[in-house]
Amino acid sequence: MTAAASQAGDPPFRSVAIVGAGLIGGSLALAIRRAWPGAQVAGVDRGEALDAARLLVAFDRLDETLAPVDAADLVVLAAPVRQNIALLGEVSRRVATRTVVTDVGSTKRAVVEAARTHDGLIFIGGHPLAGAARAGLGLARADLFAGRPWVLTPDAGVDSVALDRLSTFVRGFDADVHVLSADEHDRLLAFLSHLPQLTASALMHIVGTNAGDHIALAGPGLADTTRLASSPVDIWRDICATNADDIRPALAALIDSLSTLRDRLDDEDALPALFESAQSWRERIQS
Amino acid sequence: MTAAASQAGDPPFRSVAIVGAGLIGGSLALAIRRAWPGAQVAGVDRGEALDAARLLVAFDRLDETLAPVDAADLVVLAAPVRQNIALLGEVSRRVATRTVVTDVGSTKRAVVEAARTHDGLIFIGGHPLAGAARAGLGLARADLFAGRPWVLTPDAGVDSVALDRLSTFVRGFDADVHVLSADEHDRLLAFLSHLPQLTASALMHIVGTNAGDHIALAGPGLADTTRLASSPVDIWRDICATNADDIRPALAALIDSLSTLRDRLDDEDALPALFESAQSWRERIQS
Repeated sequence: MTAAASQAGDPPFRSVAIVGAGLIGGSLALAIRRAWPGAQVAGVDRGEALDAARLLVAFDRLDETLAPVDAADLVVLAAPVRQNIALLGEVSRRVATRTVVTDVGSTKRAVVEAARTHDGLIFIGGHPLAGAARAGLGLARADLFAGRPWVLTPDAGVDSVALDRLSTFVRGFDADVHVLSADEHDRLLAFLSHLPQLTASALMHIVGTNAGDHIALAGPGLADTTRLASSPVDIWRDICATNADDIRPALAALIDSLSTLRDRLDDEDALPALFESAQSWRERIQS
Repeated sequence: MTAAASQAGDPPFRSVAIVGAGLIGGSLALAIRRAWPGAQVAGVDRGEALDAARLLVAFDRLDETLAPVDAADLVVLAAPVRQNIALLGEVSRRVATRTVVTDVGSTKRAVVEAARTHDGLIFIGGHPLAGAARAGLGLARADLFAGRPWVLTPDAGVDSVALDRLSTFVRGFDADVHVLSADEHDRLLAFLSHLPQLTASALMHIVGTNAGDHIALAGPGLADTTRLASSPVDIWRDICATNADDIRPALAALIDSLSTLRDRLDDEDALPALFESAQSWRERIQS
């Protein structure tokens, strides 16, 4: 039992609708059952994803339509970013006056800007920094968010009660709430997440096409460096499309650093300077 | 007991001198004790490294000088590449006529070319593709080479008996012998090992300097992608200096791929093509 679970009688939201039952949506449903057992959790998805969600003992109700949104105190959009944006119109028409709407997408500026166009919608962008290289409900876990950051990106004029309720709700999963602007989030994540993903994919592509069958000689170093190359492309197509403006300079900075390295391979001082910087930053991240 | 250990009475080399008692040298000493208990293992190193080696129950003898080379049937150079090259002169003057000399360095062309200048020296380049992001004797393990490739790069006119003996010796550690030319090895490793290392270091440097204290938001994806950034620079300075000609085009290929990506972030077809290639190559490497 977590500390949050001891407050179980009084969930900040009594009825939650999660739209999208993948890794994050499914883990969220499991986390809510554990942290806030008094809350009702409805899931929305379609086809195979909906069938898979029926096997998970986490949703009190599952639906192919947005009907569960009508009675929800909290709506969580957990589809890829551009689907979340497309859903905002129908969601804003369905929700009650005080219902809070959030999302768990990997970019924030595009969805926050879209939400602003819907008058009266109480929207607070969110991004739990948790996940796995492979997506899918099969990897859903109640503790996926424990000890991990959960970024919230409220607009300046946000309803502070709504922000408090959402923060309390998320802390129930033992997540660490970080409040950032959507712009700051997207710029930071371009470096912390989007650049590593694209680098891992490009590196694996270049190494594979040049090594051919000798790829069998690869060791654990290459395996670690390219683990993200197994990520599903659907999510990343949306991330690149909605954060291209921040990803481009991040890619440019890495290209610049690799170009300098290429020109200075024989320079005995350049390499130690780079390694020292990299080593000291690497010590500041987990495992 | 391994299959090789059952042949324990007849090691291909009865006396082995290992010059350099770091992670690879120490692991090799431990592996020899297990696979070829009939063999005597002498270690050569200096200062703190020699003190650390005295704590490892693997060497029958330890020395600060190359004296153990005089009586060895096999000499293994296990220092950084350019130190191995510098050692070749004294080693070639000390060794007996039929003694086999090999190395375990990460690049092969430079050491193989240097060895050719020493008349009568029986040198076969070697590279066990095993190791860890952090170096040092403390991580030495008898099974470091088990199930891993061990590349040998014999010259065309090599003493075939020497090559057979060395191959048998190495297979005793359950390593998989791969015979490649030194050129082929260096070109392949530029992609399989050197490019991933430099990419991980450059990526960590760029991400850290741009994220600052927000580096705390980093997740397991960045941690995996940058694990190699903790590698010790001494080894890599030698690798870059002795394989610059192959590393440069490998860096150029990655820069090219990242530049294309930067220019096509909005292109809905470019990203899936890259991800598909990367995913299928990624499936062909372990874990």
